[in-house]
Amino acid sequence: MTTFNKVTAAHIAALREIAGTQYVLADEESMSRYAQDETEDLHYLPEVVVKPNTTAQVSKIMQLCSQELLPVTPRGGGTGLSGGALAQFGGVLISMERFNRIIQIDERNLQVTTEPGVITEELQNAVKEKGLFYPPDPSSRGTCFIGGNIAENSGGPKAVKYGVVKDYVLNLELVLPSGEVIWTGANVLKNATGYNLTQLVVGSEGTLGIVTKIVLRLIPLPKNDLLMLVPFRSAESACAAVSAIFRAGFTPSAMEFMERDALEWVSQYVQSSSVKIEEDIQAHLLIEVDGNYPEVLMQEMEGIATVVEGFDIGEILFAEDSQQKEELWKLRRRVAEAVKANSVYKEEDTVVPRAELPVLLKGVKDIGKKYGFHSVCYGHAGDGNLHVNIIRGTLTEEQWNGTLREGIREIFELVKQLGGTISGEHGIGLVQKSYMDIIFDQTSMKLMKQIKQIFDPKNILNRGKIFDC
Amino acid sequence: MTTFNKVTAAHIAALREIAGTQYVLADEESMSRYAQDETEDLHYLPEVVVKPNTTAQVSKIMQLCSQELLPVTPRGGGTGLSGGALAQFGGVLISMERFNRIIQIDERNLQVTTEPGVITEELQNAVKEKGLFYPPDPSSRGTCFIGGNIAENSGGPKAVKYGVVKDYVLNLELVLPSGEVIWTGANVLKNATGYNLTQLVVGSEGTLGIVTKIVLRLIPLPKNDLLMLVPFRSAESACAAVSAIFRAGFTPSAMEFMERDALEWVSQYVQSSSVKIEEDIQAHLLIEVDGNYPEVLMQEMEGIATVVEGFDIGEILFAEDSQQKEELWKLRRRVAEAVKANSVYKEEDTVVPRAELPVLLKGVKDIGKKYGFHSVCYGHAGDGNLHVNIIRGTLTEEQWNGTLREGIREIFELVKQLGGTISGEHGIGLVQKSYMDIIFDQTSMKLMKQIKQIFDPKNILNRGKIFDC
Repeated sequence: MTTFNKVTAAHIAALREIAGTQYVLADEESMSRYAQDETEDLHYLPEVVVKPNTTAQVSKIMQLCSQELLPVTPRGGGTGLSGGALAQFGGVLISMERFNRIIQIDERNLQVTTEPGVITEELQNAVKEKGLFYPPDPSSRGTCFIGGNIAENSGGPKAVKYGVVKDYVLNLELVLPSGEVIWTGANVLKNATGYNLTQLVVGSEGTLGIVTKIVLRLIPLPKNDLLMLVPFRSAESACAAVSAIFRAGFTPSAMEFMERDALEWVSQYVQSSSVKIEEDIQAHLLIEVDGNYPEVLMQEMEGIATVVEGFDIGEILFAEDSQQKEELWKLRRRVAEAVKANSVYKEEDTVVPRAELPVLLKGVKDIGKKYGFHSVCYGHAGDGNLHVNIIRGTLTEEQWNGTLREGIREIFELVKQLGGTISGEHGIGLVQKSYMDIIFDQTSMKLMKQIKQIFDPKNILNRGKIFDC
Repeated sequence: MTTFNKVTAAHIAALREIAGTQYVLADEESMSRYAQDETEDLHYLPEVVVKPNTTAQVSKIMQLCSQELLPVTPRGGGTGLSGGALAQFGGVLISMERFNRIIQIDERNLQVTTEPGVITEELQNAVKEKGLFYPPDPSSRGTCFIGGNIAENSGGPKAVKYGVVKDYVLNLELVLPSGEVIWTGANVLKNATGYNLTQLVVGSEGTLGIVTKIVLRLIPLPKNDLLMLVPFRSAESACAAVSAIFRAGFTPSAMEFMERDALEWVSQYVQSSSVKIEEDIQAHLLIEVDGNYPEVLMQEMEGIATVVEGFDIGEILFAEDSQQKEELWKLRRRVAEAVKANSVYKEEDTVVPRAELPVLLKGVKDIGKKYGFHSVCYGHAGDGNLHVNIIRGTLTEEQWNGTLREGIREIFELVKQLGGTISGEHGIGLVQKSYMDIIFDQTSMKLMKQIKQIFDPKNILNRGKIFDC
């Protein structure tokens, strides 16, 4: 394995030459906010932070780092949940925060060309003003970058109807570790021209190149939506209701699951009393439908209500106005923060075929009993994507950083057995890579490592993420 | 470059041992139907044809060919339009026709697991019986294989609303050229676990491995549809209407364009008098909407009619019943055959952002004038996917196989300039590979060739397709 060099004063001077003096940080204090993301309590200080704002600058930085064998870590909004943007080897951290321009909203073709440092919600709002819709919608949308979403192939609540980031990316401008710049595809909805480099880059967690321009497809903005919150007396039956709704022919635009603790904790955290949780309620489903015809949405809501009434539920809360909808969505979106505020935790991003959710949930709880941990589960149930938050609680250091790993491995082995995988939308990064062997055999892992080597022969770009190589 | 060996009697005996005597063909007469596909008039006879029906057999065949340096060509239904299934170097042709079982329709998870040799229409019908829908729908659906569709990332008329093959593939069992067998992903709707090997294989035209099992996602079957045929007095304005319809907020489930000649030729070919084409009509749009609510579909049809009435059109034909719908669809589906029956032709599978269609169409005609060829254009206008059929007519041999190449290059350069690419759904195969330089620079081409090398270090599998390597 290549040995990295340390960043020297000469390197810093060269970076200042490329990006401008004020856009290169080398003092610990200014760099400290680049030392972590939202993943547990990981902390890695880079040796230097550089903030380019043109493709040419990124190319020059990569050339320098390639020549000098400096480790490079690309970074978006720093909201990642698997440590993908952390400078594990120190070196040069490239912050994409100044790539913050939406280049063109093409209303004729329903496309947007953007730089990667645009905040996802800002992009969504900008296209919304034109009557257009970019559905992928992570909980962190108010602070995450669209480029980071591409690196992690993010999802969010709308994925159940509209798909994930990969389903919207048409074309990417990519700076390779050598400094060469390519476009991965074309600005078209159908493409059978060579290997799909675009889809290879989406979800590659910044290990293959640095994305500097993004072309996304958009769809017409649905004009209406309806939202309801359904309380269940059993968490497993809430999970079972999810697939029953789809089997009845409905495709909700969101179908979110929250265990009792999740909703209770977030209600306290945001000091909301909008949802009264009865004693015997164990879980909730938050269900949205959207479209252009209000009368159709009413029919669908009634149809879905009929399905869930076949389970042991409490009283359904139908959101009456946009304020109440916002309130319910706020609760769902801030669950992760609330859990974090409540206790140190590890978040597992399990995903299974949706009808297997009840088995997964039961398995998680059984494994928790075996290893003595409590978990709070919530997530995008319509996609079979369950976020399992393992609470530190009273676990000892040895349990937390020792035997718990075996418990997590058991959860992931169950996920695999159910046809699922270990990350639905958070990526592998640093924290899940030791579990990759559960999903991929050595042949597949070797293929991935060789692909990495093709793009990054000197192995300088985000090394140690996804796998060791 | 590796030099291939010739197939010997010993190799044939070994193949018979693996697949069974009756499933190995080595006489010219039996093999002749494997020597061509639907691409122009290409003809390459393999040295031996083998028809395995298990993954283990495919693995053994690949091991043998790898060890003996025999060229291998995988083949589906033989309906390809770019020569991808042709045994350019002779050698071993693996016909997947006996991989014809639908393994499981999973109604709980809206998924199907199938072998690759299942005919696309049969798969569609099987899931339809369960109220489920697999939308990708090439014109050849009655004879093409689902495995071939994956190799070419096929589309078809429904792609405009529902996406192409890549949007439905969740997981693939793949036999590598070494004989090793991997699964590329997991059976889930969201996946952020390592590089997307699944999407790398989709559209790779059988150059990376042989797909032996396929997991597809399905959606609920829409209960209703409506269809109309709109005649335009100018072909360019028909193209312009396409993007106007989307900009008005409608997403039809099909939006097909046919030039006058296309519809006239196919009407003669199938001896149909169901459409009367007025003298001054230059092109038609066939527009479908689908969904569960007939009253909504009526509203959408009326909305779309209002948009097209803003153009210079003739009388709209609304299909009155399922028989008339079928008749109109038959005309559209059989255009390619009709053109083929009319004259030798070359088909170009151009695709651009949809609002650029009028510019593309005008450009194609202008280039045709310059080089002296007539073209008949039709295709999936909603996706910006225009099939340009260049008619041999009275062109000399020198024009047809000589200067015409420059004309095609000019068309593809225009496509590139408009943000498009040279194949939307037919693939590159043998016939378009000399134009790849228009779309991809040397750096991208090198990446693709290196990816090929990782999967196929001895370069035995479908060599010479997509690019020379």
